[in-house]
Amino acid sequence: MAFVVKKNIRGKDYFYLNENKRVDGKVRTKTIAYLGKIKKEAEKKASEILKSRERKIDKIVLVKDKKTDHKKGTMEKKNISIEELTTFCKRKGFVYPSGEIYGGFAGFWDFGPLGVELKNNIKKLWWQFHVLSREDIVGIDGSIITNPKVWEASGHVSSFVDVAVVCKKCGNKTKIDKYEVGKALCEKCNGELESKGEFNPMFATSVGPISEESIKAYLRPETAQLIFANFKSVYDNLRLKLPCGIAQIGKAFRNEIAPRDFLFRSREFEQMEIEYFINPNEEKCPYKIPNVETFIYSEEIQKKNLEPIKMRIKDAFEKGIIKKEWHAYWLATELLWFKSLGANLENFRIRQHSKEELSHYSSDTWDLEYKFPFGWKELEGIADRGNFDLFQHEKASKKDLKVFDENSKERILPSVICEPSLGVERAFLVFMFDSYFYDTGRENIVLKIHPKLAPIKAAIFPIVKINKDIVRISHEIYANLKKEFNVIYDSGGSVGRRYARNDEIGTPFCITIDEEGLKKKDVTIRDRDTKKQIRVKISELKNILAKLIEKEIKFEAAGEIFE
Amino acid sequence: MAFVVKKNIRGKDYFYLNENKRVDGKVRTKTIAYLGKIKKEAEKKASEILKSRERKIDKIVLVKDKKTDHKKGTMEKKNISIEELTTFCKRKGFVYPSGEIYGGFAGFWDFGPLGVELKNNIKKLWWQFHVLSREDIVGIDGSIITNPKVWEASGHVSSFVDVAVVCKKCGNKTKIDKYEVGKALCEKCNGELESKGEFNPMFATSVGPISEESIKAYLRPETAQLIFANFKSVYDNLRLKLPCGIAQIGKAFRNEIAPRDFLFRSREFEQMEIEYFINPNEEKCPYKIPNVETFIYSEEIQKKNLEPIKMRIKDAFEKGIIKKEWHAYWLATELLWFKSLGANLENFRIRQHSKEELSHYSSDTWDLEYKFPFGWKELEGIADRGNFDLFQHEKASKKDLKVFDENSKERILPSVICEPSLGVERAFLVFMFDSYFYDTGRENIVLKIHPKLAPIKAAIFPIVKINKDIVRISHEIYANLKKEFNVIYDSGGSVGRRYARNDEIGTPFCITIDEEGLKKKDVTIRDRDTKKQIRVKISELKNILAKLIEKEIKFEAAGEIFE
Repeated sequence: MAFVVKKNIRGKDYFYLNENKRVDGKVRTKTIAYLGKIKKEAEKKASEILKSRERKIDKIVLVKDKKTDHKKGTMEKKNISIEELTTFCKRKGFVYPSGEIYGGFAGFWDFGPLGVELKNNIKKLWWQFHVLSREDIVGIDGSIITNPKVWEASGHVSSFVDVAVVCKKCGNKTKIDKYEVGKALCEKCNGELESKGEFNPMFATSVGPISEESIKAYLRPETAQLIFANFKSVYDNLRLKLPCGIAQIGKAFRNEIAPRDFLFRSREFEQMEIEYFINPNEEKCPYKIPNVETFIYSEEIQKKNLEPIKMRIKDAFEKGIIKKEWHAYWLATELLWFKSLGANLENFRIRQHSKEELSHYSSDTWDLEYKFPFGWKELEGIADRGNFDLFQHEKASKKDLKVFDENSKERILPSVICEPSLGVERAFLVFMFDSYFYDTGRENIVLKIHPKLAPIKAAIFPIVKINKDIVRISHEIYANLKKEFNVIYDSGGSVGRRYARNDEIGTPFCITIDEEGLKKKDVTIRDRDTKKQIRVKISELKNILAKLIEKEIKFEAAGEIFE
Repeated sequence: MAFVVKKNIRGKDYFYLNENKRVDGKVRTKTIAYLGKIKKEAEKKASEILKSRERKIDKIVLVKDKKTDHKKGTMEKKNISIEELTTFCKRKGFVYPSGEIYGGFAGFWDFGPLGVELKNNIKKLWWQFHVLSREDIVGIDGSIITNPKVWEASGHVSSFVDVAVVCKKCGNKTKIDKYEVGKALCEKCNGELESKGEFNPMFATSVGPISEESIKAYLRPETAQLIFANFKSVYDNLRLKLPCGIAQIGKAFRNEIAPRDFLFRSREFEQMEIEYFINPNEEKCPYKIPNVETFIYSEEIQKKNLEPIKMRIKDAFEKGIIKKEWHAYWLATELLWFKSLGANLENFRIRQHSKEELSHYSSDTWDLEYKFPFGWKELEGIADRGNFDLFQHEKASKKDLKVFDENSKERILPSVICEPSLGVERAFLVFMFDSYFYDTGRENIVLKIHPKLAPIKAAIFPIVKINKDIVRISHEIYANLKKEFNVIYDSGGSVGRRYARNDEIGTPFCITIDEEGLKKKDVTIRDRDTKKQIRVKISELKNILAKLIEKEIKFEAAGEIFE
């Protein structure tokens, strides 16, 4: 059946001749022709076209195209569960259970086309902020399997041990500390726990295919030790000066008894980590503490059962709540990174470890925590590790790991004053949760993610597919932008449908080429978050898009506002 | 001892008061003051300074500073062995043996600060070229450990088997095919081989810490299967259309019996891979074959014991030497990628697998090979895999993996017409070998690596450390450039020493701030490869540097030539 459709695109009417056809058992609508802007002329033209195609005129009905109408509605923040996020990520091609066609594999996930771009952007922006833009930090990339003596020296082989337990009542599997055996009860139902024996969460494997010569080795359970083992070579080869840091991004593996909460606790994950070294006799931090505010949950506040207090990190340091300046500096720096990429700091807090909770190597630890739908959970622990690790490796390797400190003119074993260590997947979850909005008018999800993080920076639409000039120019613009940005060409379905689809995957800008633009050599850019539109010259588009992505200019100031 | 030094910097004389001091048992030279450009005045000023510091005037000798003189010499390509490259990489902080303080671990390597930047640049530029800039390819990032049924279906568990052998005469360890047992002799000395049993090069591990419930799983020996296992979800979620590709960069592991040749054959490595899918009934390639020339080593040429023939890939296809257009397209595209990043195509060839050599799943395979110091070796195999893998997974998972093809309007199981699969570390070696030059004048290595690949894009020098204005402006320029590029600030040693040090690590541009520049608000940029210098306004520096890195402008055209 053929019919005339009126589409209202930004306040103006456009008429099209459409046709329904049955393909593969499904009804598909195809646009046969664009009929102009005036109703009478459109109906006349439609009759002519159908006659010329020697087709029976079924009926010419005027249909108002609902999809492209501007619907009024509000943009609401939506708090979703981790299960809802998992489903969303799978449906849109962000994350799949690994080996899904075989039922998945607990604790392992594959990143799909949108997920890999978001993850790469997170890693790239972390590296840019923490390594490339700083004078005092360099990077390394250690291997996942290294000499097992590294893990003997660090204590992971002997002490990194938990006890697997199963609840006799509800069957819940979990792990407990070995000192808790016989004391701890099930966290879910208070039932009695049955011990299934001690285990080391390091995945073991055998290196060397000739069995009598093979060596038991481990998949690294953390990236930190690769930094310590390489510390002296890196310091000397790169002529570093204290204070300085070594950063690393890479995979780590832990054989969790109960992987859960989607990407939050998986068996294979990726860390972004810095070990920051100082001369232990010189604890003064030469950098200003960045000006950020957060909820402070000190040991004292926790013991008194009080609520965390909102204040500037700088003030918390000056009031003595955070004892070390370096600690305050790194906590604020990490919060600043999240803030600079659009995370909502209202969902963050910093929590001090109690004395009982502290690792044996740490004299003070603050966790950066985020309010997940399943509770406040650690994003990164920022520990004062001292020189525990370098000392262990010096002892075990019998190599002198001391380095020359330019300032004090002495050879010393540096201390790790801070160890910001963030899971890539946890940052991924933070940005997904904080940007998940719902448009009540269009009834669809809007992922208000920072343009720098967005997997796709812009979608280019021809407003109609049947005008050859529009399609040609759209393709040219697409090809030109694609050299520099990850953009897509989208011509499927109504303009409204295309907006909705791109809102859902977080594409910050939609670029439309219409008839007016053909004449004026301009395009419209539509902003995902405000739905405002501006007109911009094609010759300036690349430059303006680059600035919009970097948030160097305000959207409204980037072109002529267009309703 | 104090003494006056004359430095000749680009044709002009500058005088400095220097002093030798013994620090930590080493003699170090320190500059006390800049004395101006005229010899007599300089000596007078030197006496005054030494008097004012109430120091005994040891002696004022005029020393000509040799290091900063322009030495004449040629830039020679240097062919080095893999061992020499290994030593160079270690010394400059590119690559270290993993766990080196414990003697390393055969087949595992850690990338140091310069190595991680080069490796990241290779990966980023590969992804940009193969994924982001193309309309037909999307990426994924699968996990290293996945459901082991993936490896059962692909045949890796049952058929990916070799026999470990040790030569009874020379002790050389290697692997042979199981059909060669009792037939093959030692490749080194023709000695008799002793079998040490069959082995599967997949590293195995145990997933799940409760032993009676744990599952034997594998570290992936290739990235390809993660693409096949996710194929249908990716195709449907992303609304792909055939022909199209799915790309992945990630680690893979093989338990090699004899890891060797530095990064060439290691046990942990990284692949950059595309599986390119077509409708098996539609083999026409819609893209033009890129215009590149290489040495063609077809099966026929090999059998006739002839030399490879140099010709354009396009011509090899038209003459029927390369049978499939898609194959020719991808071989040329891969060569183009290497060429676009400065690799020397004279060191490349493409070699066809003989019928006996073909894998069971492939109907035609061409290897892209590179002339390593240890012989012609494979960089990437480009196989026509057909639908072997999707078929295996469909059978094993009992899931329908067919997808809808828009063109033929039918549901089909696509074929993999090409599988370009390149090792990141092998590309790393190619770029290192091809850019390794030697400056006979300065007597130092010059790493003539493409600026886009270079770990550090520019070094910023104050020409003298004792002029506060120069130091301040140098720091400002450094801080400003650092926001966008990986640049370093280098004020250690003579200017000549700083040039040499940066040439060695491949820094393409050295930016010097001198007294003339202070007045004129400009700097000099020195080109690593030609040693030419230009003067450029500070206000234009960022823009010009960006264009120089991208090779969008010629160096000589970027500013005023300066001798």
